Amino acid sequence: MKIKISICYNGKNFVGWQTQNNGRSVQEEIEKTLSFLFDEKTKIIGSGRTDAGVHALSQVASFEISSNRFLKNFTLDSQLNSDKLINAINANLPSDIKILSAEEVGDNFNARFSAKQKAYLYRLQVGTNPLTDGFVGNVNLMPDIKAMKKASKHLVGEHDFSSFCSSKTETKTFVRKIYKIKIRKVSPIEFNFEITGNGFLYNMVRIIVGTLYEVGIGKKTAKDIKTILNSKDRKKAGKTLPASGLYLKQVLY
Amino acid sequence: MKIKISICYNGKNFVGWQTQNNGRSVQEEIEKTLSFLFDEKTKIIGSGRTDAGVHALSQVASFEISSNRFLKNFTLDSQLNSDKLINAINANLPSDIKILSAEEVGDNFNARFSAKQKAYLYRLQVGTNPLTDGFVGNVNLMPDIKAMKKASKHLVGEHDFSSFCSSKTETKTFVRKIYKIKIRKVSPIEFNFEITGNGFLYNMVRIIVGTLYEVGIGKKTAKDIKTILNSKDRKKAGKTLPASGLYLKQVLY
Repeated sequence: MKIKISICYNGKNFVGWQTQNNGRSVQEEIEKTLSFLFDEKTKIIGSGRTDAGVHALSQVASFEISSNRFLKNFTLDSQLNSDKLINAINANLPSDIKILSAEEVGDNFNARFSAKQKAYLYRLQVGTNPLTDGFVGNVNLMPDIKAMKKASKHLVGEHDFSSFCSSKTETKTFVRKIYKIKIRKVSPIEFNFEITGNGFLYNMVRIIVGTLYEVGIGKKTAKDIKTILNSKDRKKAGKTLPASGLYLKQVLY
Repeated sequence: MKIKISICYNGKNFVGWQTQNNGRSVQEEIEKTLSFLFDEKTKIIGSGRTDAGVHALSQVASFEISSNRFLKNFTLDSQLNSDKLINAINANLPSDIKILSAEEVGDNFNARFSAKQKAYLYRLQVGTNPLTDGFVGNVNLMPDIKAMKKASKHLVGEHDFSSFCSSKTETKTFVRKIYKIKIRKVSPIEFNFEITGNGFLYNMVRIIVGTLYEVGIGKKTAKDIKTILNSKDRKKAGKTLPASGLYLKQVLY
């Protein structure tokens, strides 16, 4: 039986989604819990990695369980009892990870390769605040939202995003499609960027927001975005903003 | 020279406002920073204590500095340079405390005894969420906001709040005046309670919200509030909700 779960997590105390040998990973914590509950070694496949400090409002993962396994008090028979499964998993997970939903999916479902769209949220904050520390990316100057909105239009559509990708990557193609970039001022000092696309390169959202911020403070112009895209040169784009402001918001299949 | 400061802090990793010998306190961190900056032992007086885990959007404190002291690069002469002072303090404070404002006040100002009004915010959340852990008080059931609003009206005004005060207190009079209780639903799972009064007893806000929640889930009625007040018996009121949902929002002088 294949099960798809959606997961919320606070990335602050994780080395990231993927299991590594230098600290706690989200994947590892969930696999540990599932392996304990089903009493068989269980591996999960996520829709993609998230870096250390990056949060998820709704990451998606899938795993396979032998149909005859027992989950504490109930058998996983043909009819999956989602609520019971969710509660059992959450009761055994640490408080910085929570399963939001669980459903049975077809055998050909793959959380990574079946993903059609992803949406990321970036919370950009001017100045620091003890109560948002670790939950936003901090910058020093107040950006102009109109300038950032204008500039963002040049990024929408299918482009080679080499300039907006960290050099530490193993990707073969740098062409991605951005469907939408929504920028809102949500408080006197906070801006939210929501970016939806068919897929994202390594650090792509953080570099895009970093570049739009530089337009917002007059360091770059909206027109520069076109030049940066065409250059296919990472050095031409803006800085990579901190992981703490980034949230994987939704994965669509 | 007497200086009044307003302070924002994340209470998560503090034993509370007041210096104790079992961990980090907000008072101690600020005193350490001021004593270092002015190179003289500096004591601060807060508007009141906050417990371990309680946050402050704007706590107020005051301290006295010999007028001839040097603050790193500038002398504290007759004209106080607030921005320079704020920046110097913040540069030396840990990231979970931040000074928001600083101004010179008269010699007879006392952050504790001159306070006329205080406003507290309580963030009540139904269920848990990894991204709000430590920033809200969690409950299990969805309360009815109309019932809570109706019940809250009985608390507004001058009353003996003995029933809404933790027994661990050294107060002499239990009479306090509540000016306003505002309850809002801010998300499908979060309710904000804002309570303004001339002063608050130990745990008073957390017990008030805990009691209103019990009205919200039908465990108590609005009328019960009157009976609870009259009983002057802590056991009649609801549970003390967790410190994590409580924020000192404003102190008025």
